[in-house]
Amino acid sequence: MNPDLDLSFERVVDVPPELVWKAWTTPEYLKRWFTPAPWKTVHAEVDLRPGGKFHTVMESPEGQRMPPNTGCLLEVVPNRRLVWTGALLPDYRPADLGADVPFVFTAVIAMEPHGSGTRYTATVMHSNAGGKAKHEAMGFEHGWGKALDQLVALMKTV
Amino acid sequence: MNPDLDLSFERVVDVPPELVWKAWTTPEYLKRWFTPAPWKTVHAEVDLRPGGKFHTVMESPEGQRMPPNTGCLLEVVPNRRLVWTGALLPDYRPADLGADVPFVFTAVIAMEPHGSGTRYTATVMHSNAGGKAKHEAMGFEHGWGKALDQLVALMKTV
Repeated sequence: MNPDLDLSFERVVDVPPELVWKAWTTPEYLKRWFTPAPWKTVHAEVDLRPGGKFHTVMESPEGQRMPPNTGCLLEVVPNRRLVWTGALLPDYRPADLGADVPFVFTAVIAMEPHGSGTRYTATVMHSNAGGKAKHEAMGFEHGWGKALDQLVALMKTV
Repeated sequence: MNPDLDLSFERVVDVPPELVWKAWTTPEYLKRWFTPAPWKTVHAEVDLRPGGKFHTVMESPEGQRMPPNTGCLLEVVPNRRLVWTGALLPDYRPADLGADVPFVFTAVIAMEPHGSGTRYTATVMHSNAGGKAKHEAMGFEHGWGKALDQLVALMKTV
């Protein structure tokens, strides 16, 4: 964690690490929590191995699709740690980041048992301070918090 | 391997995979073979784990140093497979690739036993065809071949 370049989000939630892990790694669950409402995740793919694909497509309330987010999984430690990056495509090919890509990040999702729940930490690493600032201005804290609320609500029902 | 984006280099050499592995993962050896002569590798660091640093500094015959190459190891399978990328810094932070970086690549170094030697394959993946073309024009085939000759000559003496 480098405070000049990274954003971090930590919260204790009342679902266990095993359910947080399932929410992050099961496409059908991802589609139901990953994008803060009223936006939606209309497609998700997870090839759960280092080098595997982590892919989501978001859609606006008006039905406009964003360009797909296609990243590469880097670390897969069941129920504890998931790392993926947008700097690489699946099987580690460097992503072709045009000048119109505002920023790229690597996400480290850590989950530790905390009583019957989970201490959940998301650390998002950027390549430069400008990338961090843009991500922050887009509402990182609020967006990841709202998505986590959706995750918890969903996993209490499954 | 995507022939539109990737460069590949395969050769059978008469040192075993264990020695090829040592040559790639031991900084003192890297300094002695990694850069085709008369250029030199004047500094090398290898933190041998996924997420670890793979770092080299080259110097011209006139003593001019190139900017350091700092990459991130992705797969570490002893004596068989080493994967590293320039798209990430150590611990998976996206690299800050300015417009002056001509191309970025991920290298997959594979070694399989072949008699008493090694079938050695280097596959270098780029993000776009322009990156592949620039790398090819810089003399990929000749450079990697000459470096491999140096590797084999060195490892026969250790």
